[in-house]
Amino acid sequence: MDQISPPARGRLLYLMRILESAGDEPLTSAQIEGLTGWSSNTIRKDISCLGGDAMGSAHGHGMGSCNGYAPAALASAIRKALELDRRRKFCVVGLGRLGSAYLNFRNFELGEFDLAAGFDTNVNRVEILNSPAPLYPAYKMAEVITRFGIEMALLCVPAEAAQTVAEKLVTAGIRGILNFAPVALKVPPAIAVRNVFVADELRSLAINMQSSI
Amino acid sequence: MDQISPPARGRLLYLMRILESAGDEPLTSAQIEGLTGWSSNTIRKDISCLGGDAMGSAHGHGMGSCNGYAPAALASAIRKALELDRRRKFCVVGLGRLGSAYLNFRNFELGEFDLAAGFDTNVNRVEILNSPAPLYPAYKMAEVITRFGIEMALLCVPAEAAQTVAEKLVTAGIRGILNFAPVALKVPPAIAVRNVFVADELRSLAINMQSSI
Repeated sequence: MDQISPPARGRLLYLMRILESAGDEPLTSAQIEGLTGWSSNTIRKDISCLGGDAMGSAHGHGMGSCNGYAPAALASAIRKALELDRRRKFCVVGLGRLGSAYLNFRNFELGEFDLAAGFDTNVNRVEILNSPAPLYPAYKMAEVITRFGIEMALLCVPAEAAQTVAEKLVTAGIRGILNFAPVALKVPPAIAVRNVFVADELRSLAINMQSSI
Repeated sequence: MDQISPPARGRLLYLMRILESAGDEPLTSAQIEGLTGWSSNTIRKDISCLGGDAMGSAHGHGMGSCNGYAPAALASAIRKALELDRRRKFCVVGLGRLGSAYLNFRNFELGEFDLAAGFDTNVNRVEILNSPAPLYPAYKMAEVITRFGIEMALLCVPAEAAQTVAEKLVTAGIRGILNFAPVALKVPPAIAVRNVFVADELRSLAINMQSSI
């Protein structure tokens, strides 16, 4: 893990996403270049990070890279190298519009993550909402997270509640938070946080639009 | 713009987000370090990218950096340096659970973006959904985008429709796409695309959790 740089990890994740919908035909690094916009040199370097074993399986029957990479085998080599080959449980906290959208997000089904529970302070929502996973009132959060061994949380509460709820999640044993509230969370360094700030994504997009004029 | 590196732009955007909710008290680079986790050296270097004018206004009454940065002034200097000081119109395309959640997303109101329209192929949705912006059937997309001068789109359609709809958006004159469909879009190089793949964010989070053990 440690020898794969964060930018390479990001590219490998994206490549894995592409490979998962690429069909069965082998892909050359030139074709991957066309799909991703990265140079085939970068692609070969990233794939070489996966190590000898992965290379072997990605190349199918040991036929060398001139035949291209078998999509499913390469995706699985990436999954292994990034240690994503173990299923993890996550929960959705805050079942407003965004949180309840993610309760029913089809794309999770394909991945290596199990939606194990949803939580909201509003008991009405908990009773009424349609959900593939059981929903609980917020006061049961710590108990349910421990009981189910939930490791990750999608934090979809309003900005003003985000810090307090994040602290409760950490106390309950959550180790990773995907934060949708536009707030810089203060959590212990051992807790992984990733922010999905859609308004900031729009800002980044606006900046990229300027550079591409 | 061009002299600010992409990682520095990303940090400045995040810093701007923090400053916007930081109150009025000046912040030292050490305090910003505590809020962001970046070294105060990195922070000072990023802020120096904003140029002399920005530095002056950020430091308030020319009192030097030992007094810290005035949050509102520094946020506005960043906004100016990143050329985000012009309002831009965007639309939401695909009004399923996620798309309709973003129609009513409170955090957009604070930003420099105006939600100008929503589109869906399902005329029923277009008539029934609650929305602060007008909603239209998908066949009116090109006409409405041109008429309103909409520059950006949140693409929230199902994966299998994403590429076709993206092409229609580009033809209609959209210059930036925030893509929520887990598909690598093929669009002309002049079109800016940013992907928000929540399942991939969960994967990144899982990877970060491993490194922090």
